[in-house]
Amino acid sequence: MVALAPSGELAVVAIGDFRTEAGATLTDAHIAYQRFGDFRGDRHTNNVILIEHALTGDTDVTTWWDGLVGPGLALDTNRWCVICTNALGGCYGSTGPASAHPDGAAWGSRFPALSIRDLVAAERDFLHSVGIGHVRAVIGGSMGGARALEWTLSWPTFVDAACVLAVSARASAWQIGIQSAQISAITRDPDFHGGDYYSICDGPLEGLAAARRIAHLTYRGEMELDERFGTIAQQGENPLGKFRDPAHRFAVESYLEYQGRKLVERFDAGTYVVLTEALNRHDAGRGRGGLNKALYSSTVPTLVAGVDTDILYPFHQQEHLSRNLGNVLGLYKIVSPVGHDAFLTETRQLDRILRMFIAKTNDGAEPTDGFGLDPEGQWII
Amino acid sequence: MVALAPSGELAVVAIGDFRTEAGATLTDAHIAYQRFGDFRGDRHTNNVILIEHALTGDTDVTTWWDGLVGPGLALDTNRWCVICTNALGGCYGSTGPASAHPDGAAWGSRFPALSIRDLVAAERDFLHSVGIGHVRAVIGGSMGGARALEWTLSWPTFVDAACVLAVSARASAWQIGIQSAQISAITRDPDFHGGDYYSICDGPLEGLAAARRIAHLTYRGEMELDERFGTIAQQGENPLGKFRDPAHRFAVESYLEYQGRKLVERFDAGTYVVLTEALNRHDAGRGRGGLNKALYSSTVPTLVAGVDTDILYPFHQQEHLSRNLGNVLGLYKIVSPVGHDAFLTETRQLDRILRMFIAKTNDGAEPTDGFGLDPEGQWII
Repeated sequence: MVALAPSGELAVVAIGDFRTEAGATLTDAHIAYQRFGDFRGDRHTNNVILIEHALTGDTDVTTWWDGLVGPGLALDTNRWCVICTNALGGCYGSTGPASAHPDGAAWGSRFPALSIRDLVAAERDFLHSVGIGHVRAVIGGSMGGARALEWTLSWPTFVDAACVLAVSARASAWQIGIQSAQISAITRDPDFHGGDYYSICDGPLEGLAAARRIAHLTYRGEMELDERFGTIAQQGENPLGKFRDPAHRFAVESYLEYQGRKLVERFDAGTYVVLTEALNRHDAGRGRGGLNKALYSSTVPTLVAGVDTDILYPFHQQEHLSRNLGNVLGLYKIVSPVGHDAFLTETRQLDRILRMFIAKTNDGAEPTDGFGLDPEGQWII
Repeated sequence: MVALAPSGELAVVAIGDFRTEAGATLTDAHIAYQRFGDFRGDRHTNNVILIEHALTGDTDVTTWWDGLVGPGLALDTNRWCVICTNALGGCYGSTGPASAHPDGAAWGSRFPALSIRDLVAAERDFLHSVGIGHVRAVIGGSMGGARALEWTLSWPTFVDAACVLAVSARASAWQIGIQSAQISAITRDPDFHGGDYYSICDGPLEGLAAARRIAHLTYRGEMELDERFGTIAQQGENPLGKFRDPAHRFAVESYLEYQGRKLVERFDAGTYVVLTEALNRHDAGRGRGGLNKALYSSTVPTLVAGVDTDILYPFHQQEHLSRNLGNVLGLYKIVSPVGHDAFLTETRQLDRILRMFIAKTNDGAEPTDGFGLDPEGQWII
């Protein structure tokens, strides 16, 4: 019996004790989720599409993928039951470092390190808990793309198809480096208290903001940022004064500080560290005879897409995926000045990618409507 | 009368009170330098080639450009008198934040903000102090390239020719962003004490190391880093344990930490902030009717080169320079997996660039020896 919360409503499901890939135990773990569209079918044959959010995403995919999930949209909720969970370790309802340990205090430093596989395994436990043993598709970008890819390798018979956006088969050394710089910005903040700040203070807000500023520079295209800001001064400020003064900034500094403040208001630093560490540990080849053997063994039809200006997950990484995956449906290059974040913002190209994905994997034929013209991006294979 | 220190010897020259572009005064400033090769000629006509170091460089160009400056090398010290100064604000002999203020204590937070133009103006004051009113060429990469470019625009009759490597006409928003992240890593360190740490402690060593780790990721090519390190664990450590543990690292983390530690041993954090801020303020168009008008007005024959895999100063920025400079000698693309640092490490291609530069600007003809073949890089124009 499949039991799901009302459409659009945030719900939390217990998945029991969770054992991580590295062998730690998370007692009494929970996964939060939202679903959009009616469930049809049964445990084994149904209309569920699973959407995986990125690092700081949440369960409300209709907001962060506005224009792509809803009635009549590419992921049509009149047809599909779209389910979006909050990743294990998250701060949007699932068990994370800020959640209560069985002893009542926050998990904090006792929260174990997670891998991308752990996030996927916990999501599978969640689906089992609500009575779902199979889904039609899994879709995600960035960290969500890493999760979608791991789904196809960890539980290939659980998913019919996957759409993997703006990610790589494993963390690159550069990614580990820049992600570790973000973790370091948080852990060096005196308010981090080794991860056990929850009962002491508001936490490493400065460090989290600094981490986000670094991260944001990897999320956007450098030419787009330059066209928007260049060397312009923030209005009313003079960044060219006699002395360096944090109150007198270039416009891009103000913009990045705004991005940092915005995240601090909505996100927990402990979760940021845990999920960033999971990205550091992303390696589809681990324990599977190496990367290319693992990818080649994949049986799940998988569509790959990336962004031409992505600094964080450069397009050659999606080319690598598409060359090596055992059952690749296609490779799409999103053309955009935006950089990595184009997997969130280039709605028109994403609409094309997702409609093509649904058509190829469900309708037995490619859609003919409006697909002859593709004004920005392009199908590589 | 031109008076220079013995060849190879570090010397320091007083340039008097220095007034910055923004209007602050640096009392009793000094510039340190080394020269290599005998001076020939007089104040106006001589054999001086000025070399400009990058952000953390020093006056010993024969070390950091090993194989390029010396007897018989591309910058032949049998022919040229090569002079390399330490930038104003530096920590290798010139007046910087760690230097003594007239009151005896370190300048610290009283040290004014500098622009690239200030570094150039102070260098000109130094040359005047030693009796030199004209040089044959100015050459530099990265921050040194910004200085070389500013030389041609600030003092066009002072230099016969310029070679500008791996830099842009102005700071891009992305550069300002990533450079500000480095400044922030230092200033947020409790040991920074607002810049006045000199009499209190060893300074913001952790912050400086963190800044360098971020910077290093912009100095190297992401594919080169990945080929070297990938997701390999540091020897004897397990970065995949039950809990995140800074003592158990990926090899790339260890490598970056080593880069950070190495810099901390040889560099002052106050200088790092001052010179990084100068890079933020780099804008050849400021006060000159805008960027392209400024570049177009240039009369000094200028050779431009860049690196195909440079993340920090992407090659399109050197293309922009070469399209807009009023008197461009050529544009060379260094082909290298190394990224930005290739302007220091790709000795063979640099040898070609520098020999071509000398030939075009001094010998009236292009060299014919060995220039038909260029196994890695290429002349674009």
